[in-house]
Amino acid sequence: MDSEILLDHGRQERIGFGEAILCQGKSVQQIEAILADGSDCGAALFLTRLDAENHGALDAGMRSQIDYDPVSRTGFFNREPAQPRHSGVCIVTAGTSDIPVAREAERTLAFNHFAPELVFDIGVAGLWRLTERAGDIARHKAVIAIAGMDAALPTVLAGLVPGLVIGVPTSTGYGAARGGETALMAMLASCAPGLVTVNIDNGYGAACAAMRALQSAGKGLAP
Amino acid sequence: MDSEILLDHGRQERIGFGEAILCQGKSVQQIEAILADGSDCGAALFLTRLDAENHGALDAGMRSQIDYDPVSRTGFFNREPAQPRHSGVCIVTAGTSDIPVAREAERTLAFNHFAPELVFDIGVAGLWRLTERAGDIARHKAVIAIAGMDAALPTVLAGLVPGLVIGVPTSTGYGAARGGETALMAMLASCAPGLVTVNIDNGYGAACAAMRALQSAGKGLAP
Amino acid sequence: MDSEILLDHGRQERIGFGEAILCQGKSVQQIEAILADGSDCGAALFLTRLDAENHGALDAGMRSQIDYDPVSRTGFFNREPAQPRHSGVCIVTAGTSDIPVAREAERTLAFNHFAPELVFDIGVAGLWRLTERAGDIARHKAVIAIAGMDAALPTVLAGLVPGLVIGVPTSTGYGAARGGETALMAMLASCAPGLVTVNIDNGYGAACAAMRALQSAGKGLAP
Amino acid sequence: MDSEILLDHGRQERIGFGEAILCQGKSVQQIEAILADGSDCGAALFLTRLDAENHGALDAGMRSQIDYDPVSRTGFFNREPAQPRHSGVCIVTAGTSDIPVAREAERTLAFNHFAPELVFDIGVAGLWRLTERAGDIARHKAVIAIAGMDAALPTVLAGLVPGLVIGVPTSTGYGAARGGETALMAMLASCAPGLVTVNIDNGYGAACAAMRALQSAGKGLAP
Amino acid sequence: MDSEILLDHGRQERIGFGEAILCQGKSVQQIEAILADGSDCGAALFLTRLDAENHGALDAGMRSQIDYDPVSRTGFFNREPAQPRHSGVCIVTAGTSDIPVAREAERTLAFNHFAPELVFDIGVAGLWRLTERAGDIARHKAVIAIAGMDAALPTVLAGLVPGLVIGVPTSTGYGAARGGETALMAMLASCAPGLVTVNIDNGYGAACAAMRALQSAGKGLAP
Amino acid sequence: MDSEILLDHGRQERIGFGEAILCQGKSVQQIEAILADGSDCGAALFLTRLDAENHGALDAGMRSQIDYDPVSRTGFFNREPAQPRHSGVCIVTAGTSDIPVAREAERTLAFNHFAPELVFDIGVAGLWRLTERAGDIARHKAVIAIAGMDAALPTVLAGLVPGLVIGVPTSTGYGAARGGETALMAMLASCAPGLVTVNIDNGYGAACAAMRALQSAGKGLAP
Amino acid sequence: MDSEILLDHGRQERIGFGEAILCQGKSVQQIEAILADGSDCGAALFLTRLDAENHGALDAGMRSQIDYDPVSRTGFFNREPAQPRHSGVCIVTAGTSDIPVAREAERTLAFNHFAPELVFDIGVAGLWRLTERAGDIARHKAVIAIAGMDAALPTVLAGLVPGLVIGVPTSTGYGAARGGETALMAMLASCAPGLVTVNIDNGYGAACAAMRALQSAGKGLAP
Amino acid sequence: MDSEILLDHGRQERIGFGEAILCQGKSVQQIEAILADGSDCGAALFLTRLDAENHGALDAGMRSQIDYDPVSRTGFFNREPAQPRHSGVCIVTAGTSDIPVAREAERTLAFNHFAPELVFDIGVAGLWRLTERAGDIARHKAVIAIAGMDAALPTVLAGLVPGLVIGVPTSTGYGAARGGETALMAMLASCAPGLVTVNIDNGYGAACAAMRALQSAGKGLAP
Repeated sequence: MDSEILLDHGRQERIGFGEAILCQGKSVQQIEAILADGSDCGAALFLTRLDAENHGALDAGMRSQIDYDPVSRTGFFNREPAQPRHSGVCIVTAGTSDIPVAREAERTLAFNHFAPELVFDIGVAGLWRLTERAGDIARHKAVIAIAGMDAALPTVLAGLVPGLVIGVPTSTGYGAARGGETALMAMLASCAPGLVTVNIDNGYGAACAAMRALQSAGKGLAP
Repeated sequence: MDSEILLDHGRQERIGFGEAILCQGKSVQQIEAILADGSDCGAALFLTRLDAENHGALDAGMRSQIDYDPVSRTGFFNREPAQPRHSGVCIVTAGTSDIPVAREAERTLAFNHFAPELVFDIGVAGLWRLTERAGDIARHKAVIAIAGMDAALPTVLAGLVPGLVIGVPTSTGYGAARGGETALMAMLASCAPGLVTVNIDNGYGAACAAMRALQSAGKGLAP
Repeated sequence: MDSEILLDHGRQERIGFGEAILCQGKSVQQIEAILADGSDCGAALFLTRLDAENHGALDAGMRSQIDYDPVSRTGFFNREPAQPRHSGVCIVTAGTSDIPVAREAERTLAFNHFAPELVFDIGVAGLWRLTERAGDIARHKAVIAIAGMDAALPTVLAGLVPGLVIGVPTSTGYGAARGGETALMAMLASCAPGLVTVNIDNGYGAACAAMRALQSAGKGLAP
Repeated sequence: MDSEILLDHGRQERIGFGEAILCQGKSVQQIEAILADGSDCGAALFLTRLDAENHGALDAGMRSQIDYDPVSRTGFFNREPAQPRHSGVCIVTAGTSDIPVAREAERTLAFNHFAPELVFDIGVAGLWRLTERAGDIARHKAVIAIAGMDAALPTVLAGLVPGLVIGVPTSTGYGAARGGETALMAMLASCAPGLVTVNIDNGYGAACAAMRALQSAGKGLAP
Repeated sequence: MDSEILLDHGRQERIGFGEAILCQGKSVQQIEAILADGSDCGAALFLTRLDAENHGALDAGMRSQIDYDPVSRTGFFNREPAQPRHSGVCIVTAGTSDIPVAREAERTLAFNHFAPELVFDIGVAGLWRLTERAGDIARHKAVIAIAGMDAALPTVLAGLVPGLVIGVPTSTGYGAARGGETALMAMLASCAPGLVTVNIDNGYGAACAAMRALQSAGKGLAP
Repeated sequence: MDSEILLDHGRQERIGFGEAILCQGKSVQQIEAILADGSDCGAALFLTRLDAENHGALDAGMRSQIDYDPVSRTGFFNREPAQPRHSGVCIVTAGTSDIPVAREAERTLAFNHFAPELVFDIGVAGLWRLTERAGDIARHKAVIAIAGMDAALPTVLAGLVPGLVIGVPTSTGYGAARGGETALMAMLASCAPGLVTVNIDNGYGAACAAMRALQSAGKGLAP
Repeated sequence: MDSEILLDHGRQERIGFGEAILCQGKSVQQIEAILADGSDCGAALFLTRLDAENHGALDAGMRSQIDYDPVSRTGFFNREPAQPRHSGVCIVTAGTSDIPVAREAERTLAFNHFAPELVFDIGVAGLWRLTERAGDIARHKAVIAIAGMDAALPTVLAGLVPGLVIGVPTSTGYGAARGGETALMAMLASCAPGLVTVNIDNGYGAACAAMRALQSAGKGLAP
Repeated sequence: MDSEILLDHGRQERIGFGEAILCQGKSVQQIEAILADGSDCGAALFLTRLDAENHGALDAGMRSQIDYDPVSRTGFFNREPAQPRHSGVCIVTAGTSDIPVAREAERTLAFNHFAPELVFDIGVAGLWRLTERAGDIARHKAVIAIAGMDAALPTVLAGLVPGLVIGVPTSTGYGAARGGETALMAMLASCAPGLVTVNIDNGYGAACAAMRALQSAGKGLAP
């Protein structure tokens, strides 16, 4: 067999949200073949890390079916617009540079009809910014806390918030920031109980985790 | 001021579960001072990474108030026995060597009145062990997936389970296992959407994250 | 002495396949000098990691003697087309992004008259894709399993396949994928017995290893 | 369910050799439970990394059924002695310190009725030791080349041997040897084509890989 | 020449505080020779990382001249007791496990007649502990902020304190804490301006830096 | 809420110097929004790591209000020119390549009305360059010692200077210099007492630390 | 003081060869200032890592005084041509890709009137290439052995050559080659006695070390 | 073949000094077998890293033939005492903790009839210690410069000494010293020209390199 693509069309049914396409590392030809396959199956596809250059190089007909956002580098393919039906998620960033990752999380949620609350630029070097908003943030069932460099924000939040806190380390900064590895390790070594983490810059994964936590609430389970 | 200890007694109220004491890195004298402080306040304390040697060296009177488990190296101090009131969590391990970490998670849940289901030794090198149990595992709201070395199990599970999947890398193995760092990085780089991770061998943290996800279900939130 | 090039023309006789030229890190002038030397000796040469820019910069006469494939970045120089004479190898990828590495392995085999079977995009996040094809894959004497990120696929395959399984980690992904090092370490730390590994993205080396295993079958050895 | 052990009894049939038990990281109680399970099923078990202290702590009745070798730290449980039926493998070490790993490989093969040839202490710092034996080594279908520190031996051998060459890095040396990581990386980055590698000190895995290569020779495959 | 020891007796005059002896890595014989040399010259010596075992093995006569503290593992040799003459330094720890490092800093200051204020166990996972004390801490000319794991405390403090803030990462924690490297890197990558750092667990160095900052205030400098 | 920017306008009052904007990692649109916010509040802003390309892309009106220096990549926005009022800081570099970092420190000080002394290119490979200037350097209250590669200069200076010595590792060099990590680690592991360190290439942070040390001299503190 | 440049003009007299200018990391303006300073002092300067782009950007008058070689990226400034007066050094490379580093070493020697012998492309994967030339190489007082990837060549040579063997790791290869770090570590961990190493790609340093060894022969020393 | 030992008896003739036995990583039985082999051949053997425990466990008859030094952990086996015949080497240490490594180098030289000069404890934090001795050190043909932590000493020496300077990083220190890796990398990244390096703590290798440089002086080579 020599077909290069085998989409996992059953994912939506199995785990509650469909397959997403990580465009980074794929050629324009491969992305087009995936879109064609999605089109044939009538499947909506969520595209991540689709940079502006590759987006521009796509076949114009296909491109016209993509709702593309350059900041988050995401695209909705074959997705009908719809009203958000779910809430309960808050997305928080420590700095301005973390916003593209926040937007990726926001778009992932939007694709699945969630409308998150957004709280940006409240890093702990100016602690009042966080304490002012902490009560509001703590009301959410899941908080996505996005921070780079020393990544102190998710630890502080996890001490204040009872819901699920998902830390997203970002690759901002330089030198000792090590492309986000310092933020990642700091979150993992956090002294705040139950803070969980995803890959560096992975706003998509954090949103999926939040959706897992929220959708599990409605599932029946025998005692 | 020179007092060495300042327990965070408000944590239970703020985030839904109380302060735990990481005993590793503390002297016997420090642990005893913490227990005395807890005793004075009438606070129940959960002790983690209390190895047998330090447990044995504690003041006998204090030791008699600790329900100690040597496999998980955990202790319940000042905690009345009670019936588990919550379910919804499944703890899975890839191998036999991962069980002490699983027991730490189980004890953390038990301290907070959760009764998890346990599925051990179903690593993917013998895939039938996992596929046989996958349907049962997938019925839970939160799955704690514990694995070392290549850590393939959490990725496979996250493709089959709709609820929150929390990967716990373990420090089993040798050489390229790098004390658990390979398992950790493999989980973070997983191609399965929404898999979250905690620190190496951190069964306690995984259990806390599961409780965050489950308790958030009951919280009211304006639409 | 000051000649810059000393090809190992006896390699074919010693170990069963000829010298390959790693073009990355060599200047166009150096590659041309190597081709001239090969031409003088009537030697067929297999070129790897010859990117499109360097291929385009080669002397036109030489370029015309190269059967070049841009996806795998490989070239056949001075090689007569011939029918494949050997089979027994299966090349498997976890994702679409791993295909250039698979193509490098396929071309290495083709240069030496092997015709591998190809199975692409069966990563374990959608486990049905693998289980559907597992029986077919297991019939081969050598399986080249190519995967990046968490690299769970080779471990799962090595539990199902009796022949030689050669894992090839790829540099796909970002952050915790660490340019392929996570995939590499996960394969090395695998709990599946006898899984072997080559360098990151080294489809060429994996194909050579498969040929070593297959050609050894025909060699006489006293008991 | 709460049983801690789930042996993969079908492994022999699926991939040609049975499950081995990595004893490092398991408690004496866990090893005893595994042996009891093996005994109940009439399964022979191969034990690896069973150090002398744990071996001595096992239940005496069980210990009497183990053929134990302290240098390789391996044990045969429930295995009838038998004549070796297969050859074709050569085990080579660069130094004397690499011999425990070589013995682990030798014992793995012996458990499965292979009788390897052994060539020890021929590291390349005294090149005549290798060149004297190279012709003999090159006659084997699979060569297990074990070396630590700079690990130059497997590269040199892979330039001289047509069969499968499996490098095993060892944790000998100090400082820049980095516990075997330098040897591992040097083998992976080797300029010799088709050299494959297993985990540091993993003599067991190398032997399994050699058996995979040799047993695949006898399997029928449609053209 | 073959004398093994050459103390830097002019250091006090040059930089304001005398040579300290790092006892870790030195044999008991070497430490005794250094003390003898100090005794001959009438020099007071500050001993660091002198563990209880080596302290106990010292010549009894010498040992009697050492004011030894086992928690900080420090000793004053040949130092007359004196009233503290300087203040202005505050030592803060995030947790109880950080206290031995705090005590090393405190002892270094005491040896040089400084009397620091101490504020322990105010890690940011229970933010009220810090905010309650922040105003008091901010009144000091130099703050030594000691924290391990995620090391969020120094960043938060550096946003609240106008004086010099010296972060000391500690080797507490496990796994992703990486023996203190995560805390170190998090402090270096901190988004708080002007936070400086010393080596992991280096309470001695932090105290020296504080003394440098405080003593510089009294030095005349032409405009 | 969806505003992306929340400047910490109280920083000047809290810690003595205002917020600086790290432009690296921010889009031109984000930088412009920050400048607009600063303009609205009448706040002077210090811009760091503003490379020439982004500077050139800023709105022309805004750009005209920026005093930009391309070597240090810094800009003063909305800052009235003023006479330097403070001295006491000396900036030293080991080599010529370290000068852009020195200029970043110098500009940070200038923005806050400090006039440092500058001593460049006195690395220890030609020791006379340092010894000739050592007496002059030692007269300062704070010395910023900037060096890459082996970073021996700060250690030598810290043995000669009584004031605060702040090491700044730089990313000069190649190979074993590891982008500045070797210089950073060498400074942290220095045998000179009380040498402190900031992030790689962080001239801004070093200047802030020097200002913290100097401004603390004038603060009243009860004994 | 604010002059940016302070050349070490006494180096020739102190250690036998003059200052070299590492141009990487310096701006064109800085290089020009250095050349002007050299010109004023009548000093010959050796320029390293001067890439073609920066060479082309230099002031034309200055450029005309530079004998530039693009392969080694070196320039002789203000150096009169002269006959080589010294021999005794052999430069060896494992592969073709290592040649630019070899040329840097050769040019360094030539600048100081040494004429090395060159032996290229004799890596150990084709062992006959090395054994054929070993006797010739072993006649030299100093051998510079340049190799990347697994770097087995210097180890093999150091077992055959009685003179000083200086290993130069190169940044060739990919993946596990880690930009030359694997080659570096393999040389440092070599089992061959007395192999010494310099930084990755540092042909200049290796040549200087060879000159140190050779010039020391003529120095008088009392017994 | 199954003999475990194959000594390289021709090494003395090939490269000028005989094989040394690295005892670390070898069992007592293996060391005894090597000594028996040496005894049979009448070969003198130099033993390194033979710790006191293993030395004490050797067969008493063999032990009586070993001239053992516990500080350097070295032994002379079968070596007749003899007057030193060569000089020209100076061994320098930065600190007292580096002395065991210096003693290993000294013993290696003594085994080969060299009598080095020793200069200890002249680290650069007290620069006068080095400048006082620099002239004397610079008179030697080869200088072995031993230092841990920041390892600034070899760089400073290499700027003052015309002969070969061999840096030996040591594993002294803690935290950022990284077991000697920081010292190693600092030496490799040194700005002093022609400084060469050996493995961490490798006093033996440094002495061998010095002997290579010195013995090469007497070898005839055509001009």
